[in-house]
Amino acid sequence: MSDSARGRRGRSGGGAARRAERTAGDFGTAPTIQRKIPNLDLLDDETLSIIEANAETVLEEIGVNFVNNPGALARWKEAGADVQGERVHIPRGLARKLCATAPSSFIQHARNPEKNVEIGGKGLVLAPVYGPPFVRDVDGGRRYATMEDFRKFVKLGHMSKWLQHSGGTVCEPTDIPVNKRHFDMLLAHMTLTDKPFMGSVTEPSRAQDCVDMCGILFGEDFVQQNTVMTSLININSPLTFDDVMMGALEVYAANNQACIISPFIVGGAMAPVSVVGTLTQVLAEVLAGIAYSQLVRPGAPVIFGAFVTSIDMNSGAPTFGTPEASQILYGAGQLARRMNLPFRSGGSLCGSKLPDAQAAYETANTLNAALMGGVNFMLHACGWLEGGLVSSFEKFVMDADQLGALHKMAAGVANDENAQAMDALREVGPGGHFLGCSHTQANYKSAFWRSELLDYKPFETWDEEGARDTQALASDRVAKLLERYQAPAMDPAKAEALAAYVAQRKASMEDAFM
Amino acid sequence: MSDSARGRRGRSGGGAARRAERTAGDFGTAPTIQRKIPNLDLLDDETLSIIEANAETVLEEIGVNFVNNPGALARWKEAGADVQGERVHIPRGLARKLCATAPSSFIQHARNPEKNVEIGGKGLVLAPVYGPPFVRDVDGGRRYATMEDFRKFVKLGHMSKWLQHSGGTVCEPTDIPVNKRHFDMLLAHMTLTDKPFMGSVTEPSRAQDCVDMCGILFGEDFVQQNTVMTSLININSPLTFDDVMMGALEVYAANNQACIISPFIVGGAMAPVSVVGTLTQVLAEVLAGIAYSQLVRPGAPVIFGAFVTSIDMNSGAPTFGTPEASQILYGAGQLARRMNLPFRSGGSLCGSKLPDAQAAYETANTLNAALMGGVNFMLHACGWLEGGLVSSFEKFVMDADQLGALHKMAAGVANDENAQAMDALREVGPGGHFLGCSHTQANYKSAFWRSELLDYKPFETWDEEGARDTQALASDRVAKLLERYQAPAMDPAKAEALAAYVAQRKASMEDAFM
Repeated sequence: MSDSARGRRGRSGGGAARRAERTAGDFGTAPTIQRKIPNLDLLDDETLSIIEANAETVLEEIGVNFVNNPGALARWKEAGADVQGERVHIPRGLARKLCATAPSSFIQHARNPEKNVEIGGKGLVLAPVYGPPFVRDVDGGRRYATMEDFRKFVKLGHMSKWLQHSGGTVCEPTDIPVNKRHFDMLLAHMTLTDKPFMGSVTEPSRAQDCVDMCGILFGEDFVQQNTVMTSLININSPLTFDDVMMGALEVYAANNQACIISPFIVGGAMAPVSVVGTLTQVLAEVLAGIAYSQLVRPGAPVIFGAFVTSIDMNSGAPTFGTPEASQILYGAGQLARRMNLPFRSGGSLCGSKLPDAQAAYETANTLNAALMGGVNFMLHACGWLEGGLVSSFEKFVMDADQLGALHKMAAGVANDENAQAMDALREVGPGGHFLGCSHTQANYKSAFWRSELLDYKPFETWDEEGARDTQALASDRVAKLLERYQAPAMDPAKAEALAAYVAQRKASMEDAFM
Repeated sequence: MSDSARGRRGRSGGGAARRAERTAGDFGTAPTIQRKIPNLDLLDDETLSIIEANAETVLEEIGVNFVNNPGALARWKEAGADVQGERVHIPRGLARKLCATAPSSFIQHARNPEKNVEIGGKGLVLAPVYGPPFVRDVDGGRRYATMEDFRKFVKLGHMSKWLQHSGGTVCEPTDIPVNKRHFDMLLAHMTLTDKPFMGSVTEPSRAQDCVDMCGILFGEDFVQQNTVMTSLININSPLTFDDVMMGALEVYAANNQACIISPFIVGGAMAPVSVVGTLTQVLAEVLAGIAYSQLVRPGAPVIFGAFVTSIDMNSGAPTFGTPEASQILYGAGQLARRMNLPFRSGGSLCGSKLPDAQAAYETANTLNAALMGGVNFMLHACGWLEGGLVSSFEKFVMDADQLGALHKMAAGVANDENAQAMDALREVGPGGHFLGCSHTQANYKSAFWRSELLDYKPFETWDEEGARDTQALASDRVAKLLERYQAPAMDPAKAEALAAYVAQRKASMEDAFM
C-alpha cells in the first residue's frame, strides 16, 4: 500500500475499537507487491510505435461497433467521432486524447482500511479466478458450481496471505437464479472477507444493485467519493462493445467505480494470428473502451486490460502459458505504460483438466510473464483450471502458494552491509560450512521464501507418508484451511442491513435463468 | 549456429556421401536458440560493482584452497599469487586479468557438423540432466540407474528437436564399475547420437581417456585444433578446488577442450544466506577457477557456471525454482556478461519426488529465469527430478516439450507487414471471425507454438480416453519415442575402432567401485 493509501486509512478513522474488532478472523495479508525490480521491455520502440500508429488507423478507418446503445453513439458523435449506424469511426488521436483524463493509479477501498489497495505504478494486486461455471476437487471431481462452493473460495481467498483482493465471480453459483446471483455473491464478499472485491457486470441494473449495496457497507457519501469496486468489462473482440457490458461500465464509471476495460481474445479466432496484429487490435479496443469511460465521466478509474490466449490450430482449443501469449502480455504492458495507465493481465491460466504438471507449467509461465511484464492487477491469480471452465479447489491453494514467490521476487535484492555478508565469508573461509555462522543465525528466518504447501521432506519420510503428489497435499491444505476459517469481525448492524436489503430485493423479483 | 560455425562445418568437408549417410536416424534438431529478445538485468550497476569489489577482497584477503595439487600452487606462485600452504591469496585484479584470455564464445564440434554449437553471445544451447544415481518412470518407480537406462536417455535426447546437446552423465550407470563407466557412457554418446557431448571428470586419467576416444572419433589433429567436448568442473564451495576436478580441468584445458567452471552451492550451507553474499562467493570462485584454466593454457574455452539452490531452513533440503535462486541466476548472468564470458545456469531444476505440479512450477520458474537471465549453456534442461537424485523418463519428455516454448519465445516478435496483419483487421472488421481469413490461412501453421505432449482435447474426449494426467501422457510418449528410435548413421570403421579401444582398455583394468 502506498503512503497515500495509508493516509486515506488514517483519515477514515476507527481507532482502537476497530482494531480489536479485527483481531478475530484476520489471517494476515501481505501488502500489495511493490516491484523493486525492472520490468522486461520485450518489444523495441519501433515495434511499439508501429502498433500505436496502426491502432489509430483501425479506429479511424475500420471503426468499432457500439451495439444497441443509442446513448453511446450520441456521446461519440458529440465528442467528434464519425458515427455511421452503430459503427463509430474515431479520428486519429481522439481516443488517446480522451484517455488522458483517466488516472494513472487509484486506490480501491476495502471495508477494512488496512486492506485498501493502490492499483497502478510499480504495484501488483492479486485477485483470484473469475467466472468458471464448474468446480473441481479431488474428492468430488468436476461438477457445476454452487453458492456453497462460491463461499468456500471466498473463505480460501480471505485466508491467503498473498492475495490482496477477493475478486468477483470466483465461480458461477449455478444453483441461484441468474438475476439474483449477484446479491448472494456480493454479500459473500462483503461478509466472509474484509478484502476489496468486484461488482456484477451481467446487467446494468445489477451493477446498480452493487453500487447500492456498497452504499450500505461503506456509506453512500463514501462510495460517491471513493472507489470501492473494480469490475471486469470485457470487450466483444473484434472491435465490438455490447450494450450489456457498456451498460455496466456506464453505471460504474458514473459512480466513480473502477472498471477493467479488457479485450477477451482467443488469438487466431478473435484477432489476427500474429503478435503485432493482435496487439494492434488490443490497443484499438482498449483506446476506444477507455475513451468511452472518460466520456461517461472524465477521471473515472480504469485499467488497461488484455486477456489474450493462443489457439491450438488442430483442435481450435485456446492454449495458455504459451510463448505467443507471453509476448502479447509483455507488449500490452509496454503499451499500457506508454499510456500511463494501470495494466491488467496474467493469472493462473492453463488449459489442463487437472491440477497436474501441465497446469503448473502453463501457470508458472504466465505468472512469471505477469510479474516481469509489469501487470498491476492480476485477475485469475489462483484457482483457474481447464481454460477457465473450472475453479479448482486444489489449484487455488497451489497457485496461491506460488504467489508468495512473486512477492519475494519482486522485493528485489538488498545490497547493504548485512546483505554483502563479508563477515560470513571471512568467518567460514575455504572448505567451511555456513549453517552455524553468526550471519546465518541472524538472517535465516527471512532469507529464503518457503512454500507452505510443496514437499521438501526426505524421500523416506515422504514415501512413508503415502508418496503424495501436489494435488493430494493441496487437497489436505484446502480441508485444513476451511476448518480453521473464521469470518472477519463486522458491524452487526451493517450485516443485518445488507441481509435485509438482499432479502427484500430478491423477494421483489421473479427467478430468471438467463 | 553462427556463420563461423557454418564456415567450420564447410571446411570439415564430407559432401553428398556424408549427407546421404545422415538421412537415417535423424529426427531433426532446431538450431541453437539465438535470442532476439533482451535479457532482464535484475540487479543494478551499483550492486554489481559492490559484488565485483567484494569478490576481489575475498580472493586477496581470504584466498582459495587448491588441495593436493602442488602443480597448481606452483602455477599460482609463478603468476604472482601469495601462496601459503594450500591457500592461494590472489592480489586484487590478477584473477580478472588472467580471465581476459578466455574466449567470449567458442564452437563445440559434433560428429555431425550440422549439429556443431556455438556457446556464448546471444545463444542458448540446451543439454539434458546430469548426474543422478537413480531413475524413475511410472511403471518401475524409483530405482538405481543402469547403463541400459543411460542409453535410453541418450536416445530420447537424440530424438528431441529442442536439445542441441547430448550432455554427459544423463544418469549414473551404477551397474558398471566406477573406473569403467566413462568408457560406456562416452561410447553411448558417440554412437547413439550425433549431437555434441561432455567428457568424464571423475579422474584426470578418465578425462584423458575421453580425449583419446575423441581422437578416434574426430581424428587426433582435429581434436587438438578444435573443441569437441564441454565438461563440468564443479568447485567445492566455499572456495575450495580439489585435485580430482582440477586434474580433469588440467587435462581438458591443455587439450583445448571446454570446461564449465561451476560453483555448486546449496545457499545457506555452502554460501551465505544472502543473494549478494552468495554472488560474491560465486564470482570469487569463478574468477579463481577460470584464471587457473588460463594459467594451464591461455585461450582455453571455458564457461562461467553458477549452480545455486536455496535451502529449506526447516529440513535442510535444497529447494528449487525459488525467488532467491532466480535472483542469483539473474545476477550471475550479469556478472558473466560483464566479463564477456559464456554463462551456464538454469535447467529443469525441482525438488519434487514426482513429475507433478510441484516439479512443473519449480522447473518453469527456472526455465523462464534462464531464458531471460542470458544463460548460454543450460545443463539439466530436461529430466531432472528430486533435487538431482533422479533422472525421470517422463519428466525428460515433459521438460523437453517446454524447451520448444523457449525457442519460440527467444525468437522475438516480427513487425513486418505480414506481422502487422492490417489486411486481416480490414477483412474481418468488428464482430467478425479470423479463423477463415486469408492472413490466418497463410500464417496459421507457424503462428503458434504447439506442444507435442500436453492435452488440448475437448473435455469429453479426454475423459473417454482415461482422463490422463501429464505424467501418463509422458509415459506414453517415452514408449513411442523409444520404439521409433534409429541410430544416426556412422562410419562403421570408426564404430569398430571405438568399440575395440573400449574393450581393450576395460580388459586392462581391475573393477573399482569408487
